[in-house]
Amino acid sequence: MKVCIVGVTGHLGYVLEGLKKYDEIELAAVAPGSEGENTDGFLKKLEVYGIRPKKYCDYERMLDMEKPDIAVTACYFKDHARVSMNALGHGINVFSEKPLATTMEDLESLKKAYDRSNAKLCAMFGLRYTPWFLTAKKSIDDGVIGKVRLMNAQKSYKLGRRGINFKKREIYGGTIPWVGSHAVDWMHWMSGEKFESVFASHSSMFNNGHGDLEVSALCHFTFSNEVFGSANIDYLRPESAVSHGDDRIRIAGTEGVIEVKDERVYLINSAAKGRAELDMVEGPSVFEDFVNMIKGGTQAMNDAESAFIVTEACLKARLSAERREIQYFDKNICNSK
Amino acid sequence: MKVCIVGVTGHLGYVLEGLKKYDEIELAAVAPGSEGENTDGFLKKLEVYGIRPKKYCDYERMLDMEKPDIAVTACYFKDHARVSMNALGHGINVFSEKPLATTMEDLESLKKAYDRSNAKLCAMFGLRYTPWFLTAKKSIDDGVIGKVRLMNAQKSYKLGRRGINFKKREIYGGTIPWVGSHAVDWMHWMSGEKFESVFASHSSMFNNGHGDLEVSALCHFTFSNEVFGSANIDYLRPESAVSHGDDRIRIAGTEGVIEVKDERVYLINSAAKGRAELDMVEGPSVFEDFVNMIKGGTQAMNDAESAFIVTEACLKARLSAERREIQYFDKNICNSK
Repeated sequence: MKVCIVGVTGHLGYVLEGLKKYDEIELAAVAPGSEGENTDGFLKKLEVYGIRPKKYCDYERMLDMEKPDIAVTACYFKDHARVSMNALGHGINVFSEKPLATTMEDLESLKKAYDRSNAKLCAMFGLRYTPWFLTAKKSIDDGVIGKVRLMNAQKSYKLGRRGINFKKREIYGGTIPWVGSHAVDWMHWMSGEKFESVFASHSSMFNNGHGDLEVSALCHFTFSNEVFGSANIDYLRPESAVSHGDDRIRIAGTEGVIEVKDERVYLINSAAKGRAELDMVEGPSVFEDFVNMIKGGTQAMNDAESAFIVTEACLKARLSAERREIQYFDKNICNSK
Repeated sequence: MKVCIVGVTGHLGYVLEGLKKYDEIELAAVAPGSEGENTDGFLKKLEVYGIRPKKYCDYERMLDMEKPDIAVTACYFKDHARVSMNALGHGINVFSEKPLATTMEDLESLKKAYDRSNAKLCAMFGLRYTPWFLTAKKSIDDGVIGKVRLMNAQKSYKLGRRGINFKKREIYGGTIPWVGSHAVDWMHWMSGEKFESVFASHSSMFNNGHGDLEVSALCHFTFSNEVFGSANIDYLRPESAVSHGDDRIRIAGTEGVIEVKDERVYLINSAAKGRAELDMVEGPSVFEDFVNMIKGGTQAMNDAESAFIVTEACLKARLSAERREIQYFDKNICNSK
């Protein structure tokens, strides 16, 4: 199975782990996906592992020449949709960094390209596959908290020093789509409810010279069945903190409350006296799950349809924050599961 | 100092603790404040402590006859404003259960009565005075997290079995004002910012036969200086949980993150390597603070002006949830600090 990488900005670690695990996967070539990207550092890093893919300057030429089974979209965020569309047009399966698109127009075009293509598509919602979020999801599906009623998800990152591709809105796409999309995805995935509306706010104040980059954001989603969910998103995590991120979710249901925090899962319900810490379940990584689907047979847990819906939800949240207006979801077209 | 209690529905524990602590405070009399309230159970409980106030059937007559220094408003929530206005009209200081009013009209009338009166007023925002919330507030004021940017507050209660005064909206007033007002107060108090807008949602689905009572709610406030805050409020805490409530707040600032959880306070900033647990500061209770203000000299930490603002914020949040519309705060009139 032949893989080509387009861009060196996204979470390529998923692919590298897959290369180590599966002998039949070959990284054939690497090309930049955006103007300003330089693949040299990444290629040097690969050499350390004894991986020596071809180097292309033009990703379209790479896809034409190499005809890979999988194109990995990992360039500047504004170019995700364009690169993925190109690959889908070649009939190449796409493993794309999130968000799938940074504008609603690009998202619509990408959806059409996906519908026209026989190729498969997967967004890098890799956090679904961590033992903690996977355990929470499976426990909810097993009914340990009854019906989901109220959710609060958190993404908190260290800011550090970031490049120009984070500082310009038209390249970066915004903090809600980039950082927040995970939190939005967890709520949609774990509840199984449909998005109905979103009200959101974001601020680039105190961003330490990072241009347009929003360092704080808050989203309020309403879902079907009067389920509500908030996502608080920030780059305010102090540099002294023990980890880069502080991912959390709390979900209150009719029969219990489940929480993910510090890479652990906690449950209160009538069976769990006091607060129980749950044993973790493990699964494949997001890339492995996608590869298994392409090899045949399985359906990936992280399906393209839900990635489109979550991308739309994030772009509507960003629009809500820009306009300070509630945004609604079209129940008939965009939000089917 | 003479105290009369009007109603036996609210948190009278604050007053009873004060009676034990201060010899100069005398509980002179008790009367129901709402149709349907019966004071017998409360009077019997007082007898166990050797406290034998007079029993009145008519609270207005009680205030006329007893001329107390403090009237405690603790009846059904819809009647808070009416009782407090009556007491203020008599020039009697008022210690009122929150919310101060359950309709915007009552709140406006109460404000006018307060402005006309020389008497003082205090809302039972007693959770401000717990060592954990007090410690968080003082630490923020000391600058340990820099400027407040993003807040998430939580109130989660057990539902249990509740009476008719919780089941009918026109008596109860709603879960956002009753349970949520603490969370709204913490955010307003700790940030020192002004309310600008609110979008909220609430649901009475799965309320286990409790009529109109909303068991889940979510509020999204925007404050001055692009500060945002969410409050998630629920009655979904399982009966098996170790405590009745699960109060929390997380506040991310430009220099650190502070959290209250499980009656403890945690801080991450450059000085606190990893995560530090803060030593608690202690202060008087909300009732003691009010008594001290009346005795003279001190300014209560929990001032009437901010209680009016927070009550308004809760009523606007409830209106937002009912109408599914954003509600705005009048910067000139209602929101001064």
